[in-house]
Amino acid sequence: MNFESLLPIWSKLTPSQQERIKTSVVPRTLGKGAVLHNGSVDCAGLVLIRSGQLRAYILSEDGREITLYRLFEQDICLFSASCVMKSVQFEIMIAAERESEVLIIPPYIFKQIMEESAALANYTNELMATRFSEVMWLIEQIMWKSLDKRLADFLLNEATLENSNTLKITHEMIANHLGSAREVVTRMLRYFQTEGYVKLTRGSVEIIDLAGLEALSDT
Amino acid sequence: MNFESLLPIWSKLTPSQQERIKTSVVPRTLGKGAVLHNGSVDCAGLVLIRSGQLRAYILSEDGREITLYRLFEQDICLFSASCVMKSVQFEIMIAAERESEVLIIPPYIFKQIMEESAALANYTNELMATRFSEVMWLIEQIMWKSLDKRLADFLLNEATLENSNTLKITHEMIANHLGSAREVVTRMLRYFQTEGYVKLTRGSVEIIDLAGLEALSDT
Repeated sequence: MNFESLLPIWSKLTPSQQERIKTSVVPRTLGKGAVLHNGSVDCAGLVLIRSGQLRAYILSEDGREITLYRLFEQDICLFSASCVMKSVQFEIMIAAERESEVLIIPPYIFKQIMEESAALANYTNELMATRFSEVMWLIEQIMWKSLDKRLADFLLNEATLENSNTLKITHEMIANHLGSAREVVTRMLRYFQTEGYVKLTRGSVEIIDLAGLEALSDT
Repeated sequence: MNFESLLPIWSKLTPSQQERIKTSVVPRTLGKGAVLHNGSVDCAGLVLIRSGQLRAYILSEDGREITLYRLFEQDICLFSASCVMKSVQFEIMIAAERESEVLIIPPYIFKQIMEESAALANYTNELMATRFSEVMWLIEQIMWKSLDKRLADFLLNEATLENSNTLKITHEMIANHLGSAREVVTRMLRYFQTEGYVKLTRGSVEIIDLAGLEALSDT
């Protein structure tokens, strides 16, 4: 297992710390849709992503969602070890959006080594600051950017991720990413269709005017 | 200077680390309204608050604000040292809401000791997780709580902070705290007045039905 590339501070750990990680780490395959972390219920540990795609989101009492950020190959999922950091006082959901191969460092090993190693503690800090920055970006989007621009951004981003201009996604799923209501998203997509940006069919959204969406997203 | 109480991990630092902090720390008085940190322009350092009250907020391009959290006596302001953490990729404003006495540990000293000391790095982690939790709470409020409840919460919280039911605050200032428009806040305050929750006069909001506001905030 290639820890050097998955955990950038690997070479700053002592041989004993490296050994403890090697002997305790658990490889796991997450099927598409599998929930890795469910609020305060789970604490799998520090999750190193070898391949695949995870989504971090929050869930309201009445089942509404909003996507906070996504994690890809080589990323590290910190909040699946949130029990290690007692000041993390929020509940987050993390699920696999594609089949994902991960390595899991158990929470007690992560905690133990972080208490010994300034390198791991500082790296954890940078990980948290990265997620914090993504969430701050999201707040600015929600507060100061209108839904048409956020929807245009979302469709463009999905097209890049899927490497296709035809997105197999329901209006409900889009609403869950954006923290909006399905009806509102449907109305905006229909407006996009009349403007010639997209073509809507059952269960999919096809982007037909990429430049138009990009211009909308940039304004 | 009572570092033991202002920096809880003080006893876990080495004598050399304590000495470097003691000889470099700068005491400062911030007048009411003084801006301690302005996005990526400043990097004062790690700020230990001896007395007073600071407000952290973000600012849109067109001058709108939203309050992220507040800091009080014994709190530590981390993002005034954001240049030390390269993954902090957002711009935050921090200003004194009351005259405040602070101790500032310069950023290069903070960085140097954090790289040596797992205790300080882990404590920094907990500080960031605390602020992260406050911002997550805010997102949930914005996304899933209607403005009437957020306004009721805000007025109740201010009354506690000011220890008075008469708040010297303009509708504009309230809008800046909540990230809303002044007109929207004025309309809601007038509704609160017709419901008998508050009495509005020029430049102040008087709470006259505390229980009513509490009931509204709890629903």
